[in-house]
Amino acid sequence: MTDLLPALAAIVGPAHVIAPGHDQAPFVTDWRGRYHGRAEAVVRPADAAQVSEVVKLCVSQGVAVVPQGGNTGMCGAAVPPTEGRAVVLRLDRLNRIRWVSSLGDAIAVDAGCILAEIQQAAERIDRLFPLSLGAEGSCQIGGNLSTNAGGTQVLRYGTMRELCLGLEVVLPDGRLLETMTALRKDSTGYDIKQMFIGAEGTLGIITGAVLKLFPRPRASAVAMGMAENFEQVQALLALARSRLGDRLSSFEAMSRRQVEVIARHMPQVAIPFSLEAGWYVLVELSDTLEGDSLPALLEAMLGEALEKELVMDAIVASSQAQAEGLWRIRHSVSESSKAEGYVVSHDSVVPLERQADFIRGVEQAIEAVSPGATVVMHGHVGDGNMHVLAILDPKAFDDAAALQDRAAAISLAVDGVLVPLGGAISAEHGIGLSNRARLARAAPPLELELMRRFKDLLDPQGLMNPGKILI
Amino acid sequence: MTDLLPALAAIVGPAHVIAPGHDQAPFVTDWRGRYHGRAEAVVRPADAAQVSEVVKLCVSQGVAVVPQGGNTGMCGAAVPPTEGRAVVLRLDRLNRIRWVSSLGDAIAVDAGCILAEIQQAAERIDRLFPLSLGAEGSCQIGGNLSTNAGGTQVLRYGTMRELCLGLEVVLPDGRLLETMTALRKDSTGYDIKQMFIGAEGTLGIITGAVLKLFPRPRASAVAMGMAENFEQVQALLALARSRLGDRLSSFEAMSRRQVEVIARHMPQVAIPFSLEAGWYVLVELSDTLEGDSLPALLEAMLGEALEKELVMDAIVASSQAQAEGLWRIRHSVSESSKAEGYVVSHDSVVPLERQADFIRGVEQAIEAVSPGATVVMHGHVGDGNMHVLAILDPKAFDDAAALQDRAAAISLAVDGVLVPLGGAISAEHGIGLSNRARLARAAPPLELELMRRFKDLLDPQGLMNPGKILI
Repeated sequence: MTDLLPALAAIVGPAHVIAPGHDQAPFVTDWRGRYHGRAEAVVRPADAAQVSEVVKLCVSQGVAVVPQGGNTGMCGAAVPPTEGRAVVLRLDRLNRIRWVSSLGDAIAVDAGCILAEIQQAAERIDRLFPLSLGAEGSCQIGGNLSTNAGGTQVLRYGTMRELCLGLEVVLPDGRLLETMTALRKDSTGYDIKQMFIGAEGTLGIITGAVLKLFPRPRASAVAMGMAENFEQVQALLALARSRLGDRLSSFEAMSRRQVEVIARHMPQVAIPFSLEAGWYVLVELSDTLEGDSLPALLEAMLGEALEKELVMDAIVASSQAQAEGLWRIRHSVSESSKAEGYVVSHDSVVPLERQADFIRGVEQAIEAVSPGATVVMHGHVGDGNMHVLAILDPKAFDDAAALQDRAAAISLAVDGVLVPLGGAISAEHGIGLSNRARLARAAPPLELELMRRFKDLLDPQGLMNPGKILI
Repeated sequence: MTDLLPALAAIVGPAHVIAPGHDQAPFVTDWRGRYHGRAEAVVRPADAAQVSEVVKLCVSQGVAVVPQGGNTGMCGAAVPPTEGRAVVLRLDRLNRIRWVSSLGDAIAVDAGCILAEIQQAAERIDRLFPLSLGAEGSCQIGGNLSTNAGGTQVLRYGTMRELCLGLEVVLPDGRLLETMTALRKDSTGYDIKQMFIGAEGTLGIITGAVLKLFPRPRASAVAMGMAENFEQVQALLALARSRLGDRLSSFEAMSRRQVEVIARHMPQVAIPFSLEAGWYVLVELSDTLEGDSLPALLEAMLGEALEKELVMDAIVASSQAQAEGLWRIRHSVSESSKAEGYVVSHDSVVPLERQADFIRGVEQAIEAVSPGATVVMHGHVGDGNMHVLAILDPKAFDDAAALQDRAAAISLAVDGVLVPLGGAISAEHGIGLSNRARLARAAPPLELELMRRFKDLLDPQGLMNPGKILI
């Protein structure tokens, strides 16, 4: 049996192996500080061939492999286990843009490329890569693929799965599955690569991808409005869709309490509305042709909405700076919620028809198990994704265990409302460690059984990111 | 052992079981008349529960199950085998639109719904279901899903896979996998349903689906132009993309020989151009907002193309009738090619950067193995899908076997050009029987191995549509 550390160093070079006790901390803990694992090494291969060698070595020694991108995940999927032998495999050195094509509207990247860098590479050839989310400055595309990331533009461009044309994956036996094609149509049997998207590294390690690009928007307009209740928010969405067609690129909503939390903790963020409405809606239009017709379109739609009493008030941004100011409110939800207390977060998605029922039901259900919890909501209404946060005061709990028990009870209550309405417990954050028990409870048994059978088929030793997704 | 026919009749009713010798012919032969199989029964269940019972019964007796939708496929995937016990399972009685939602922009349908009926159901709530292809009046959505169908609007809306939100599948053991959700975002582990899309019924039988709807286009414009060579066609595509953004919904091209074949066999189709160009291009714009700006946009782009000598001539349709007349040329390719002789058809897809090389190479390669064959091409240039047809004179061959040998030699020659350029042998028609040998030759061995392992996992007895996709 080879000694693991020198063998890893022989593959990736000694400078790229971090042994225990040597600054491993950032890589064995998630960014929210909720999970802490142990690793015999943090290893940073340079390319897919080295990833393959590392996997072969680890598997031969029965050592688990935990792939890690930007380590910005919300569910602890990139943290090594607390027990057993494991290696954290960082993808950050796989950071090449392999090629971009304006003719084929595609870009091929290493899995460790940072999302914002891919957006910029697309922009340089006058194209758009539309995936957009809070962590885009540090998250890596391999992680985005592994959680089937969503973000604010799914309404128009789809999720990460729909943005992916080709994939390169190191399988649990170390072999390289190469489907790095840029083909827009392909009807040649089972589409194997689909299994690795959203799999959080439990079926293999994504090392590269070919992604779709789009014509770049050349005009946009942003507005914010306030509505009395969620039924009006939905009626506004329906009106916006019929008046604005596919110019509508974002339709975001925040509950009043969410906006109150922002106002309380981030006084530097200007909120140009009174806090008397039930919901605050951010609407963005964009167009791939130049022109100045969008603000007028938006104004006409909002005028009609005012007349129909779907909104109490609304403003259309009259400058880029004002548009950014409105988006800043939306982008302040995470920071302000964190400042408010201990956040029990739910990345729920519910069919639009049931969304109003969900919102009513979930508030009552949380109040029942955690009286006085601050319940705030913000979501991508257009795609049914509503983030429901219960914010607790940690000082009200005897210890961390009591706090976690309460969090679990709240999640149980949320799922009790969500699942019967046909919702899913994770829209875009994934499962990781945080949601394993919820998935086991909420998913249909046959689906769970098939997931387990696929896992056993591809990773019979169970060494690929063990303990994530499936319990 | 139960006698099969009465047992089937007990499940679906005697009126819905067709025994051998009783008008089975349309269901054991493909529409082009190239494949003829044998079935112990053609059975027409009424719903998913009956499909499940039929599958359980057949599997318990070791009888293969061949699902069949509209039987409009191009590759023989819905034809029963010539040997061994088999039942053809027709989905045509599963023809309910289950629900439509304008709020959620989704429609839930039985697998036996005819594509055109789904398009119409969407239109009734002022939405678009964008899948559009020649057989839409008779093909069924279950078949479209099972071949990951494409068509003329993939450039803007994606393939069948991207249009599918949820699926209902009867597994090879008869259990019903139910993922009929309308969720736009879902990050809850492996997306099992993806395996059944494009699987041609070899992993189970699709009985229902939830599909995406889109804002309906309210304005459109169509133009046709002629270009000297394919490099100019591609330069025109690049220009169209940058000038027209996502208004561009179709970009189709036909080779001169293709247009000559249409002119020869379909004199009733008016072709408003001389036949001296290398390529004929059909461009369609559409917009989800009303307005009359599209023809002017198209004219401006084509004016610029004329100036840059990318097109020799072009016309923008000035009426709906004229637009339909231009589309009629494009829609005449199949009928006219069939009238020209015996068609050896290739549904190729090649990255756009390699398309010009492909076209040059494939003409030479076919000429080398079949001197004098009429090679015609038509394709969806925007998505890389080029249909290459070699048309043979059957009278020049001693017998059917000689004709088929030549066809096989031609396909071998096409693949010899296609595969090294990173292309795929089937863009939208599937594999079925026709392309099995080509797939086995062209696909990377590791991909084939994984396909076989998925097949063995889900259908260990090999009774689901045996002999299709994998040899």
